[in-house]
Parts: sequence; structure tokens; C-alpha cells
Amino acid sequence: MLVAGRALRTIWLAEDGQSVEIIDQTRLPHEFATIRLTRLDEAARAIRDMQVRGAPLIGAAAAYGMALAMIADPSDPGLDAAAATLTATRPTAVNLHWAIEGMRRTLAPLPPADRAAAAFARAGAIADEDVDINRAIGEHGAGLIAESSRRKGGDPVNILTHCNAGWLAAVDWGTALAPVYRAFDDGIPLHVWVDETRPRNQGAGLTAWELGQHGVPHTVIVDNAGGHLMRRGMVDLCLVGTDRTAANGDVVNKIGTYLKALAAHDNAVPFYVGLPSPTIDWSLDDGDRIPIEERDPREVTHIAGWSDDGARREVRLTPEGTPAANYAFDVTPARLVTGLITERGVCPASREGLLGLFPERRTRGAA
Amino acid sequence: MLVAGRALRTIWLAEDGQSVEIIDQTRLPHEFATIRLTRLDEAARAIRDMQVRGAPLIGAAAAYGMALAMIADPSDPGLDAAAATLTATRPTAVNLHWAIEGMRRTLAPLPPADRAAAAFARAGAIADEDVDINRAIGEHGAGLIAESSRRKGGDPVNILTHCNAGWLAAVDWGTALAPVYRAFDDGIPLHVWVDETRPRNQGAGLTAWELGQHGVPHTVIVDNAGGHLMRRGMVDLCLVGTDRTAANGDVVNKIGTYLKALAAHDNAVPFYVGLPSPTIDWSLDDGDRIPIEERDPREVTHIAGWSDDGARREVRLTPEGTPAANYAFDVTPARLVTGLITERGVCPASREGLLGLFPERRTRGAA
Repeated sequence: MLVAGRALRTIWLAEDGQSVEIIDQTRLPHEFATIRLTRLDEAARAIRDMQVRGAPLIGAAAAYGMALAMIADPSDPGLDAAAATLTATRPTAVNLHWAIEGMRRTLAPLPPADRAAAAFARAGAIADEDVDINRAIGEHGAGLIAESSRRKGGDPVNILTHCNAGWLAAVDWGTALAPVYRAFDDGIPLHVWVDETRPRNQGAGLTAWELGQHGVPHTVIVDNAGGHLMRRGMVDLCLVGTDRTAANGDVVNKIGTYLKALAAHDNAVPFYVGLPSPTIDWSLDDGDRIPIEERDPREVTHIAGWSDDGARREVRLTPEGTPAANYAFDVTPARLVTGLITERGVCPASREGLLGLFPERRTRGAA
Repeated sequence: MLVAGRALRTIWLAEDGQSVEIIDQTRLPHEFATIRLTRLDEAARAIRDMQVRGAPLIGAAAAYGMALAMIADPSDPGLDAAAATLTATRPTAVNLHWAIEGMRRTLAPLPPADRAAAAFARAGAIADEDVDINRAIGEHGAGLIAESSRRKGGDPVNILTHCNAGWLAAVDWGTALAPVYRAFDDGIPLHVWVDETRPRNQGAGLTAWELGQHGVPHTVIVDNAGGHLMRRGMVDLCLVGTDRTAANGDVVNKIGTYLKALAAHDNAVPFYVGLPSPTIDWSLDDGDRIPIEERDPREVTHIAGWSDDGARREVRLTPEGTPAANYAFDVTPARLVTGLITERGVCPASREGLLGLFPERRTRGAA
């Protein structure tokens, strides 16, 4: 997508072919800065410190981290150490393990001298594959926006989104926002309501920034506002991402998604989830079996922003010593989801809907 | 309620009988400070700058403001000027007009020399009446909490609340929180989930502070979290206040209330509204006819809190120039409300329910 008019990904091979560049997302939206990663430990730090974040992007960054490690030490112990270092950065991220294990399977059979080149090639392929998946989600989802636009006689389609499921969370395009970028680039008039997404404010910070850079009309609202907007007919479509989807179509996503799905259902607003197939957990019968991560209460009691002098500052919002709880995700039951937008098309949020698009997943054990 | 172990109201007559003291709510929760008001302009500024806020408290403060004005100038022009000055402070607050007009009706027929004493007496009566109404709401609502406690075999009752409908918004007790204080003082084990209530964070600031001072167990959560808590069985009861209630039981309250009511309904959690009868708008057939105030977008893009050095600081949360919208209230349809807790008892959220408690409102025109 565009940043100040220039097409960018979140991670790319540097011109020397031996290092990788990333956007430092910890400095957004206040400052746009790129960082060059040349060593394994730099890649590990970038993931751990959330200079790169978002499941698809973490996978690509870990793959490139393995490649950087192979330049310095392509031996078998070097390969093991690189995998261990990267795995330890964010132990719960599914894509991280998938990417690291995939790299290891590719590299282990090769003579050490060939590993670095093969690793860069494989990491590049992982990044490209992510772009392809999300581009396809964008094309399928843009059809829904185009349909809404036709129904409105060309008036701007109002789309509500939660958290950041844009290109900053992936290598390019994003998941929930891929259809928005596709439709916008196709000239369909649209406008995005951006939930600020407390407590970490990924909407107010990252989503607002990336939509603004690409020129997509948008308005930031507090998480409390979406229900009112839907009651007043000011939302045509909800589009969110997902961290993990159960085989029955239950969707685990950033805390607060469930409340928006309830409001959409109560007001007959279509509620769609952008869903790269690697985020489907086929082993999970329903979403309520997923343990919900509890994070540091300080993310609730304190908030960071920018002062007039340009400095990033953290301030406390609650009386000193106030107890707080910080649940990171919630489960939106499949019954509230109008459809899942995958790289293979749009399907109902149900086991049969998903198996219709991914028939290879019908196994001996399944009914 | 208690502040550092001392029983306080939000406004009271000073010992000299000629001035009024208030808690400066703009300095909460960071600092507890009281201010003495001795002149009309000081009372007007306290209301305008939100040193006092909350509909019932604004009414009482305006009444005392009229009394202070009568000390300095009890003439007819003085009475008119005082009414005009106070009316201009917060032009949309219903209780403000009600209190000022009530004072004027009391004072106008009196000889100027008698007005100051009569004004202080009437203002004191308005404050006492507010306390009586809210104490009664507390008693009726505490019955619901006691019932829940019995069903749970004495385990703590988990109550979710939104915004600040506590004693800081009234003269004492509060509306939604009156039942909480009553039940707590009666020894019923309970715990309050406090929605932070973006954008102005009245929950994280004021509600957390007043519950903490009174010793009521509570936990602050982001507004996004309530749905998840209800799905996981961690909320037994929702209790919120209201700014205005239509004659059919539709409830206008702080933005985000509707989303919590949807989640309560979806999870069979009882959802009650604490409702002093002066907030019922009998002329309004349903809530959707109420225009929703749009406030300064800066309340969304910026937030204020306290730095480690104790200074209050405002920081920006969004990229510079990001558009934001700031709707202050939403409408919760009566169908999602389990019951209304009034000073005369608990009733269904319906025209018939309300008329059952307030039969004097059955007019010629009503069906």
C-alpha cells in the first residue's frame, strides 16, 4: 500500500540481498521510520519488541530472521539456535511456529553452504504467498463492497472495522482491510469508521495511519460508538480480522469484536470476517474452548500518546492502585457472522461453509 | 458516601451558613480538594467548568448559586440576572432549568430582604430531596443484588456499570450505584466491573475513585471487555444510569450503554437502569426521537491523564489531522432493559410499567 505516495510492504529484502528492511511500527503513527536488520538478534528483537506485529507479518519476519542467521552460521547447531531464538520471541503466535518449522524443513537437508541462499528464497516465497492470500481476500471482499455500493446508488459505503487488520499486520493488503483497499483502488466511494480499539489503540494509531497514508476516507470513533452508528443506519458493513477461527466458524478476535457483531445482528448490518486460511484451527470444534490471553493491567490503567513537543509520553488514567483486568480477545459466535472472506471466496460461518471451500479438510474423523 | 473514612456529600452548606462547599471534580481522581463558593460567579464557573457535574448535582449547585446571588443583590433585577447567568452555564442540562425556575418561583413573591434566607432553605431542600430519591433507588435496587447473592449462595455478586452514575453525579448515593452502596453497607459480598467509558473516562476516573474511597471491591476494564465477561458468566447484573428516559422505557445514556445491553440480553444477564423520576421525559414517545449530542472530536483524538511527576498531561492518540467523531449518548431500546429502578420501586421498562408506579401521569391524552 501507499506511504506518502510510495508503494511499500511491511518487510522487504534490502538492495544488498543480504539484509532485510522493516517499518518500525513502534514509532507509528507519530513517525515513519524503517530499520535494516542484518543479524538474527536484530530480527528477534524486532519481533519481541513489536517493531513488527500481526500474525502474518511475524511469520515472514521470522523466516527472514532464519535467513539472516544462515549468513553468520549455516551449521546444524546454528540452524537449531536460530529456530530456538526466534521461537522464544512471541511464544503464542501460531504463524511464527509455522514459518520457523517450514524454514527448518527446507534448510536441514541442504549442505550448510547452500542454506543462506535457499533461506532467503524461501523467506521471500513466504512473504509473497502472504501477499497473494491477502490480495485474493481483497478481491472477494471487494465484491461485497461493490454490491453495497450498487444498492446505495453509488453513495459512499460506510464500513466499520475494529483493531488493525490492515497491511501493517501482514506483508501487504491486510486481511479485513484488503477488500477496502481493493474497492478504493477500483474507485468505489467508501468511508471507514475506525474503532480506536482500547486498550492498545491499534485502530486510533495504526489503522488510522495506514488508511490516511493510502488516502482512504476514514473517521476514528471510540469503541463505544459503533452501536449508535448502526442504529442510526450509518454503517453498511462491518469488516474485521481474526486471530484464530474454530472449525465451526466461531471467530476469536481482538476484545470488543463480539459487541460489534451483536450490534450488527440487531440492526441487520452484514458482519464479515477477513480470514486467511492459515488462521483456521481445524482441530477446534468451537471458539469457547480457546483460552483468552490476559495481559498486563497496566495497558488499561495507563495509556501512551504524543505530547505537543513530539515526545511519546505515558499517562495514568485511574486512581493510583486501582485494580484492572485486561482480556485481549473475545469469541464471536458463528451465528452472528454473516460470512467469512477467505482467499478462496466467501462462505457461511459454519463447518459446512468452510469445508465447501476447503474440501481437502474433510478427514476420516469428520462427520 | 465515604472519602478517606469521612462521610461526605458533593455539595454542602458551609459552617458560616452563607457559603457553599463542593468537591472539585476536575481534580479527581488525582487529588481530592474542596472549594468554597461565596459568590454567584463562582457557582456559575463551578458548573461551567465541570467542577460539579451530573444532572442532579448541577441542579443543586444552581439552586445554591441563586442563594449566593441573593446575599449580594436580592432585588428583582438581581434575581433575573442570577437566573440568566446560571442558565447560560450548561444550556442542555434539564435539572439546571428545573432548579433555577423552581428557585425563581419561590423567591419572586417574597420581599427582597427575605430572599437570601428563603433561597438557602429551598436549595437545601432540593439537595435533601435528591438524596432521598437516590437513597430510595438504592433500597429498591439493593433488593435485586440481595436476591442475586442468595442465588449464588453468598458468593460475591458481580455487577457491571458504565460511566459514572455514582454519588459524584448526585448530591449523595448516586443513581446506578446507590443500590451498590446500599448492598455493600448491608454486608452483601459484591464486586463491580467498571467500564472505563471512553472518551471522557468517567468510569476509570470518577467511578473507580468513589468506589475505592468507600471500600467497594472493583476492577476497571476497557469498554470492549464486558461482552467477553458476560459470555464467560463473570457478570451477574448490569446497573447503569440514564440522562433521559422516554415514556416507553427507552433509555438514553452514555455512549456504549446499548452495546452492554445487547451483550446482557444475549447472555441472559439482568440489565437494570437506576432512574430518578425527574429524568423521565413523559412527553417523549420513544428514545429514537432524542437528538444525540456530538461533542468536540478532540475528546477522542486526545486523552488526559497523570504523569509520574503528578502533573496532568494531555497526549494525542491518533495521527495528526485524523478525523474523529464524538457521539455522547446512545439509545438502549426498552426491549433490552430488564427493569427500571425508581424511587418508588422497580418496574418493567414500558409505558405501562412506568405508569404503574406513577399513576398521576395517566393524562386525558394517554391511551
